[in-house]
Amino acid sequence: MKAEIFSIGTELLMGELTDTNGSWIAAQLPALGIQLQWVTIVGDNLDMISEAFTRGMARSDLMFTTGGLGPTQDDLTREAVAKAFGETPVVQPEVVERLERYFEGRGMAMPAHNIKQAHLIPSAEFIPNPNGTAPGWWTERDGKIIVSMPGPPGEMHPMWENQVAPRLREIVDDEVTVTRNVKTLGMSEAAIDEVMDEYFGQENPYLGIYSKADGIHLRIIARAASEGEARSMIQPVEAAIEERLGEYIWGYDDETPEQSVGQALLGKGLTMATMETCTGGFLANSITESPQAFRYFRGGVVAFSPQQAMENGVPAGVVEQHGLASEKAAAAMASAARERLDADYGIGIAGVSSPDGENGHPAGQIFIAIAGPDGVKELAMRVPPRRITIKRRGSNTALTELRKLIASREESSSA
Amino acid sequence: MKAEIFSIGTELLMGELTDTNGSWIAAQLPALGIQLQWVTIVGDNLDMISEAFTRGMARSDLMFTTGGLGPTQDDLTREAVAKAFGETPVVQPEVVERLERYFEGRGMAMPAHNIKQAHLIPSAEFIPNPNGTAPGWWTERDGKIIVSMPGPPGEMHPMWENQVAPRLREIVDDEVTVTRNVKTLGMSEAAIDEVMDEYFGQENPYLGIYSKADGIHLRIIARAASEGEARSMIQPVEAAIEERLGEYIWGYDDETPEQSVGQALLGKGLTMATMETCTGGFLANSITESPQAFRYFRGGVVAFSPQQAMENGVPAGVVEQHGLASEKAAAAMASAARERLDADYGIGIAGVSSPDGENGHPAGQIFIAIAGPDGVKELAMRVPPRRITIKRRGSNTALTELRKLIASREESSSA
Repeated sequence: MKAEIFSIGTELLMGELTDTNGSWIAAQLPALGIQLQWVTIVGDNLDMISEAFTRGMARSDLMFTTGGLGPTQDDLTREAVAKAFGETPVVQPEVVERLERYFEGRGMAMPAHNIKQAHLIPSAEFIPNPNGTAPGWWTERDGKIIVSMPGPPGEMHPMWENQVAPRLREIVDDEVTVTRNVKTLGMSEAAIDEVMDEYFGQENPYLGIYSKADGIHLRIIARAASEGEARSMIQPVEAAIEERLGEYIWGYDDETPEQSVGQALLGKGLTMATMETCTGGFLANSITESPQAFRYFRGGVVAFSPQQAMENGVPAGVVEQHGLASEKAAAAMASAARERLDADYGIGIAGVSSPDGENGHPAGQIFIAIAGPDGVKELAMRVPPRRITIKRRGSNTALTELRKLIASREESSSA
Repeated sequence: MKAEIFSIGTELLMGELTDTNGSWIAAQLPALGIQLQWVTIVGDNLDMISEAFTRGMARSDLMFTTGGLGPTQDDLTREAVAKAFGETPVVQPEVVERLERYFEGRGMAMPAHNIKQAHLIPSAEFIPNPNGTAPGWWTERDGKIIVSMPGPPGEMHPMWENQVAPRLREIVDDEVTVTRNVKTLGMSEAAIDEVMDEYFGQENPYLGIYSKADGIHLRIIARAASEGEARSMIQPVEAAIEERLGEYIWGYDDETPEQSVGQALLGKGLTMATMETCTGGFLANSITESPQAFRYFRGGVVAFSPQQAMENGVPAGVVEQHGLASEKAAAAMASAARERLDADYGIGIAGVSSPDGENGHPAGQIFIAIAGPDGVKELAMRVPPRRITIKRRGSNTALTELRKLIASREESSSA
């Protein structure tokens, strides 16, 4: 099945916003057996959007659109789909009612403009949007399908996952692509390249290697008639990775470092706490991305002043003698976080918060300590002195190290 | 002058790589007076690339392409440009020599494939590429121009800045585009649409409205012969926005809520501290995005357990009587953050951390308090119960409210 994507919005042509919806949808299609042929970005102009849709109907079976479903005069996707199908939009009273209830629930009257979102053409049906006022449209006639979704990723992603993807799975019966992603930390890209040498360069299953903020990812991609067949092609490659890189693996597929740690803690009924300086809250914010975090995360401190660190149990002597940007501070922070909050593990991340360096250390110097039942594990690293790099690499390294620590403890206690 | 962009490469359609070249070039065009109409991503397929270029030649004066200039069989941009212009590529001996020298300098023989990069059609000339083996092509005939650049940003950006942009400046004597972005929070998109009704639908100056995580943005775009003229067209629209939405405006152009607050604090030599529950560190992490944060941010607490809140100055009575997910807790957290760290302002964000609701409140309920020299300001809000929405909206609202508080204090003290 041949598909194309249209991302709609003048703001995408002004260069102020990068279109991430296109590549997000693109990444979902291979596993569904859908072949993406084109991605087009078009502004909020009815003639141009209609031109794009009409061309799409001539060369593709399946078209995905994002954006242009809002209530304002700039939102023209519905009108353009109607034009491409040669049909006239008609207002749907039951949807007007639903919208009125939505606004009522927020203590407001429905603005008159929102009536736009209650229109439909005969070949279209609504795709419910529990996360906003703009429902999607699934428009289908004579073997051509246009799936129109809202632009905000927070509305588009759940609509895709809960409604669009399941429906596509029923329709598409082409070849299936299955991907398996293995995430490692601690071994260089070139070293992995050498160790896994004979698996690279094959077409199917294909093995790719990608350097990311949370380490090196290995991606196995297999195409076959069925999902089971594709998985059995992946299996030997995955087994080889596990055999040769086992101790460096910290996660699979979409797993994030914080999910990986969360799973490990939840499984054992353990808890953690944090204290951080140069990562500025990135660590705590990552941990609380998991909806179950309140079960294992006891709390975090972002110590941007020595006073804040001392208020939370870092000895004044450590701060005075070594400063906050020091190995000793990281260790004291990890222990203080653990002890003060009765947590099983405490993470301390200390480093240089000022872009000019601090305490004799250059920006980009990070000290990590993990306090646990068996004592304090310390490590130091140096990363390029960009703020987001310091935050990401410091936080991800601390979490994957904690994950490995919990796993190794498990092994030794079960041995 | 009407332009379009083609990003070429099958990897862009696999969703593993997001096309950033398109939006990068898009951002360069308004100041050059070039109007971008379309962005198209197309795979490494000669027929499809040629189809795209031929359509582009029919509707645009100026086409930019990135990618597909490498030495492999997959690199088809040159061939497609030749096809679109109906001309035949011929090898250029002096370029073969230059390529041979390039490889010699690296102690290698030139791979046979690289001869592709030494071909040219009569209407094209090379754009030198000091950062790689692939020269660009500037192809021009009968008022149509295709500018072909390599895909790697490290090669494309300097080629653009040093060679393409200067040449475009000589050619284009069209209008200049100036953009002004006004950021609001607290009024709905549709309500703003109503209030600003008569300004929408105009072509120049154009007014666009965009719903973002930090509120509703209004964007004014004006095209004129000079920058000054464009700014004077923007001025009355901006004045109308300020008059009608003044109290909801928290920032302009690229400003983020944290930058806006940071500027306000730095300008007055003031400091702040935070304590948060349901935003889980997002607030502290946002504040520390600014490289100067260490000058005004005294620290933050992510209180994921009552113990953590009490350790940091929230009275046990408040926690016992009202729980952490309460107005009273938010106020106590704001005051404790302010007092314990001797900060001028303390922000407290309390709310429901568990997805199942807490303390009689549903997920999505947020209480914000700001403690300052004039007492504690409190507000409550309810947002869709998605984790990232709770974090973003809670954090952005707290920051924009603090920004407005500092501004109003300024006014009253200077009055």
